Amino acid sequence: MIITLKSNQNTPKRESLISWLKSQGMRVEISEGEHQTILGLIGDTSKIDTDLICSVDIVESVSRVSEPFKKASRKFHPDNTVVKVGSTRIGNGHFAVMAGPCSVENEAQVLTIARAVKAAGASLFRGGAYKPRTSPYAFQGLGKEGIDLLIKAKKETGMPIVTEIMDAAHLRFFDDVDMLQIGARNMQNFELLKQVAKVNKPVLLKRGMNSSIEEWLMSAEYLMSEGNPNVVLCERGIRTTDSKYTRNTLDLSAIPVVGKLSHLPIIVDPSHATGRRDLVESMSLGAIAVGSNGLQIEVHNQPEKALCDGAQSLAPEQFASLMTKARTFIQATGRELN
Amino acid sequence: MIITLKSNQNTPKRESLISWLKSQGMRVEISEGEHQTILGLIGDTSKIDTDLICSVDIVESVSRVSEPFKKASRKFHPDNTVVKVGSTRIGNGHFAVMAGPCSVENEAQVLTIARAVKAAGASLFRGGAYKPRTSPYAFQGLGKEGIDLLIKAKKETGMPIVTEIMDAAHLRFFDDVDMLQIGARNMQNFELLKQVAKVNKPVLLKRGMNSSIEEWLMSAEYLMSEGNPNVVLCERGIRTTDSKYTRNTLDLSAIPVVGKLSHLPIIVDPSHATGRRDLVESMSLGAIAVGSNGLQIEVHNQPEKALCDGAQSLAPEQFASLMTKARTFIQATGRELN
Amino acid sequence: MIITLKSNQNTPKRESLISWLKSQGMRVEISEGEHQTILGLIGDTSKIDTDLICSVDIVESVSRVSEPFKKASRKFHPDNTVVKVGSTRIGNGHFAVMAGPCSVENEAQVLTIARAVKAAGASLFRGGAYKPRTSPYAFQGLGKEGIDLLIKAKKETGMPIVTEIMDAAHLRFFDDVDMLQIGARNMQNFELLKQVAKVNKPVLLKRGMNSSIEEWLMSAEYLMSEGNPNVVLCERGIRTTDSKYTRNTLDLSAIPVVGKLSHLPIIVDPSHATGRRDLVESMSLGAIAVGSNGLQIEVHNQPEKALCDGAQSLAPEQFASLMTKARTFIQATGRELN
Amino acid sequence: MIITLKSNQNTPKRESLISWLKSQGMRVEISEGEHQTILGLIGDTSKIDTDLICSVDIVESVSRVSEPFKKASRKFHPDNTVVKVGSTRIGNGHFAVMAGPCSVENEAQVLTIARAVKAAGASLFRGGAYKPRTSPYAFQGLGKEGIDLLIKAKKETGMPIVTEIMDAAHLRFFDDVDMLQIGARNMQNFELLKQVAKVNKPVLLKRGMNSSIEEWLMSAEYLMSEGNPNVVLCERGIRTTDSKYTRNTLDLSAIPVVGKLSHLPIIVDPSHATGRRDLVESMSLGAIAVGSNGLQIEVHNQPEKALCDGAQSLAPEQFASLMTKARTFIQATGRELN
Repeated sequence: MIITLKSNQNTPKRESLISWLKSQGMRVEISEGEHQTILGLIGDTSKIDTDLICSVDIVESVSRVSEPFKKASRKFHPDNTVVKVGSTRIGNGHFAVMAGPCSVENEAQVLTIARAVKAAGASLFRGGAYKPRTSPYAFQGLGKEGIDLLIKAKKETGMPIVTEIMDAAHLRFFDDVDMLQIGARNMQNFELLKQVAKVNKPVLLKRGMNSSIEEWLMSAEYLMSEGNPNVVLCERGIRTTDSKYTRNTLDLSAIPVVGKLSHLPIIVDPSHATGRRDLVESMSLGAIAVGSNGLQIEVHNQPEKALCDGAQSLAPEQFASLMTKARTFIQATGRELN
Repeated sequence: MIITLKSNQNTPKRESLISWLKSQGMRVEISEGEHQTILGLIGDTSKIDTDLICSVDIVESVSRVSEPFKKASRKFHPDNTVVKVGSTRIGNGHFAVMAGPCSVENEAQVLTIARAVKAAGASLFRGGAYKPRTSPYAFQGLGKEGIDLLIKAKKETGMPIVTEIMDAAHLRFFDDVDMLQIGARNMQNFELLKQVAKVNKPVLLKRGMNSSIEEWLMSAEYLMSEGNPNVVLCERGIRTTDSKYTRNTLDLSAIPVVGKLSHLPIIVDPSHATGRRDLVESMSLGAIAVGSNGLQIEVHNQPEKALCDGAQSLAPEQFASLMTKARTFIQATGRELN
Repeated sequence: MIITLKSNQNTPKRESLISWLKSQGMRVEISEGEHQTILGLIGDTSKIDTDLICSVDIVESVSRVSEPFKKASRKFHPDNTVVKVGSTRIGNGHFAVMAGPCSVENEAQVLTIARAVKAAGASLFRGGAYKPRTSPYAFQGLGKEGIDLLIKAKKETGMPIVTEIMDAAHLRFFDDVDMLQIGARNMQNFELLKQVAKVNKPVLLKRGMNSSIEEWLMSAEYLMSEGNPNVVLCERGIRTTDSKYTRNTLDLSAIPVVGKLSHLPIIVDPSHATGRRDLVESMSLGAIAVGSNGLQIEVHNQPEKALCDGAQSLAPEQFASLMTKARTFIQATGRELN
Repeated sequence: MIITLKSNQNTPKRESLISWLKSQGMRVEISEGEHQTILGLIGDTSKIDTDLICSVDIVESVSRVSEPFKKASRKFHPDNTVVKVGSTRIGNGHFAVMAGPCSVENEAQVLTIARAVKAAGASLFRGGAYKPRTSPYAFQGLGKEGIDLLIKAKKETGMPIVTEIMDAAHLRFFDDVDMLQIGARNMQNFELLKQVAKVNKPVLLKRGMNSSIEEWLMSAEYLMSEGNPNVVLCERGIRTTDSKYTRNTLDLSAIPVVGKLSHLPIIVDPSHATGRRDLVESMSLGAIAVGSNGLQIEVHNQPEKALCDGAQSLAPEQFASLMTKARTFIQATGRELN
């Protein structure tokens, strides 16, 4: 961490700042400049609050040299993490596809789609039981009943299931769920992160639609610092100044960037990112090419009747066709489909 | 709502769409164009899911003519709403200043600041007991103990208190809190909104740092549709592509825009928006000039020692000086300071 | 085009608006709603100014159903355009790689890099002679002398050359340049577009770093409406709210989106988008996977000594390694490398 | 400037970097850290290219401590600059209002509006002769003929005139224009900046709609480094992720931010920023409250018939009403209307 002091510094205040920094376990290197003084902090700065230091009136600016995340950082954990969900592995060359409907609607729908995506090569089944909707008047999901339907699909097909949790008070309904999803709108719902971390299940952490990569990794750090190392990241599009043709902008460069910063596996959700069925295949292949460890794809047996987000769902035959092309790309990049 | 159909529409599918729309209580006006057909929907469209209609394959696009919010809309409630917090009124010419520390730290701090901001003219006391922090290693607030300290300040000064709630499970600690704050990161934590709405207290709803005005009003609609009409909106800066000199960009045009769309009172938080103490006064005066119904200002007796966000806190004498200038502007615009 | 009128419309004003619209060659369909009236415009609306109509006080909103670009639109030109630069073809399955230094520095540098990129498989040579720099104190390029060096490289290697033009007054120096590049900062320099269009050379039109896809295609329309059909689009990253780890955010979904809207070829520049040498290979492969028709890659023989943008330049051996992987992906997607 | 070196640095490379930095006139302070080495550069770093240093492979990051602009900086020029346009002063307490139509259309229109805005208190007349339009099919302005009409208005009313220049080749038509406007889309048209600077006239430099404050001041630096000190900055709204209710987002906090960084006067254009006539008054008062040195307001005698941007133009009586309120605010903040 580097602290730049304003030119007209007052000696007692500077001494007091330096003493405080040392009391926090830092070694402090001082460089006197023509217009300002620079303090270089050496030691574990991840617990130092930059805002606090900024507030000292002799300080001009503070910049971090090392990242504020530790458990998620590749620096302290160079090997790729592999997260196991049931028998499916994600990360370090293991590629996983999770597919299913945006919203669970009824038993026939769930079982039909589950069989279809399994046949096409998905290894995890995803479906929404609790749905975060912008409008209070929109369908809010079947809740516990929806989870029960997902469990039926799991029993019949053997696929582990992934579904979103929006409130820690619902955790008691998630006993038979294999992977808990934290949605984009809850990425910084820190109370939810803390409580979900305590349950010993893999977590799929979606990137907030306007979260920075650093904030996203800090939210992973919340999960990991509470004792849960099984975190998979999911890029699902960010909000930019152009939203005429796609709902969000899929940030594919986040995949190699996160791969350099962190050892955690990262997958891509092209369905929510684009909001357009006709772009899902292209962006899925792009995701594989840039190094994603998996995909999350919306599939619906009757996309035009889906209760939410139907515009982005693939029909089962479109999904099967995508899987055929995806296999070629996964192999071409030396990875293995679960 | 206007639905544009693709040029090559298939008659049975179109008939089926129109029947479904009518079954939802809509009147449907059909305009045949050279390249497409346009359906005009007449009736209460606030419960129609545009995503669902988009997903029908003969549909090219859907656009709303009326806003999707109803209870928050000025169309159905032309008069300005006045929200009462204790004896303080907010809205319709009543201007309220809420001030206090970002984080509650200890009794001496809380009481000192409370007395100072009351003396300077604040009518509500705000302080953080539960703090949403990007890093799990940063100070997370004193929790229940912090609320108890706020209640002491209320008893001593008579000022109603405002503090943030992050988890509905904490609601039992908020009995003596006068106004519940929903923070920017939880603006779309819909489960929290639903449960907070059920408690019969005024709510201060901060705008998410990348939420659209429409999403913000839809979150207000969540609170109102659960039966709570006492909602005050708070603009606190949005994230833009330039964050070198200010933490976020204070969107002051949101004040008159919301004033035209909604009858709810709206206030401004220049402290979090700018993150800079030296900009708080200018932006407070700007907020008054554009029509804000109040201000939320961070004040700390020792800004350089604040446990969080100190860089943006005013010292009590700076706050008093701001209040003097604010009074002139409030009067000049024909409003009344509580 | 759909015009929504406010509820309380005044009959003579409405009549006058409808007459004016008809005088512009439009057919007007009227739908009377409960709260407003909707006018559907049928005919060629590309020359109708939506701003003008918005300004009429009885109008609530105007929305386009068809796109405002015509010559660039796939609707009126369904087949993919192929642009020829010298003997290199770009578009419709023809994939082209243009490579070279950000800035032309001296003859040895230019010739060394040109030979290296040709040997590795590039078919076009790019280099900057006129450089747009944020700072007036930064190196502004060699200008005409730089173009002369590029021409030497062309004579020696046979590769056509691509270089940026910043001022129409320089056009007289570009006689032997094969393709004129319009940079991101000049994408809406309409006077430059008009004058460059008049020279009968292929144009590479970079997307502005905060331009929408529609604005970009409208700038292509400027070139085409002046009589130049040989336009290649180049995605080079957009500015978003997160710029900590990459300079801009490469918008790869723009590739299939533009492919559906327009018949023009589109290529990708991963060097400027990311600003990071270590991300260029991943993002190049991603670009091929999503359907790009080519790549523009910065290559420098001594990247650490480049006079500008060196942090993003590949060394020749890195470029050769990228080309090997790129070939596999280009073939896997059924395209042909020039 | 602070340069952070990667942990595993190679001694000869480091020596060579330090020597080069010294050869550029820098003093270099070295701090050895546990994981990295930090170089503090002392001296005039405004001509050092950070990109160049970033490209050296032993470098992890480079951050500037002082700003890259010099002539525009308040550090080296503490007093407020006053720019004179004819007899009108802008800056240091002198407040100027420039008003007029977006596009010059004909003599009657120009003279009618000019007389009206002068009567209401405007001190400068603005009108567009050359118009940057997104579409090649939209009205492009009257060009030279438009300038002649502005000059007529100047002769009749005595108000100095301000109009946009889009191409340096047109400069010969601007002899009798008092202030040259550089539009948002040309803020980084560096060739135009260089050539406009050479003409000895005040320049109004609009902020690009997605330019950072630093880039904007660097464009001012282009003008100043070519010898023109008479630069007035104009904030006109930036592009953000929400554009449903306003065309752009007026960044009013830029006013005090620029006021701290630079001595140059800064004004606000609420008409283009919001694109809505009904928001112009609120945002004008907000601009005065935050410290703007002036306003640029669109006024049209028949706003509903304006050839462009009519939706944001005020009618003369609306402008007169705004001026009455503005006077009160200008006086309340101790400034003087020209």
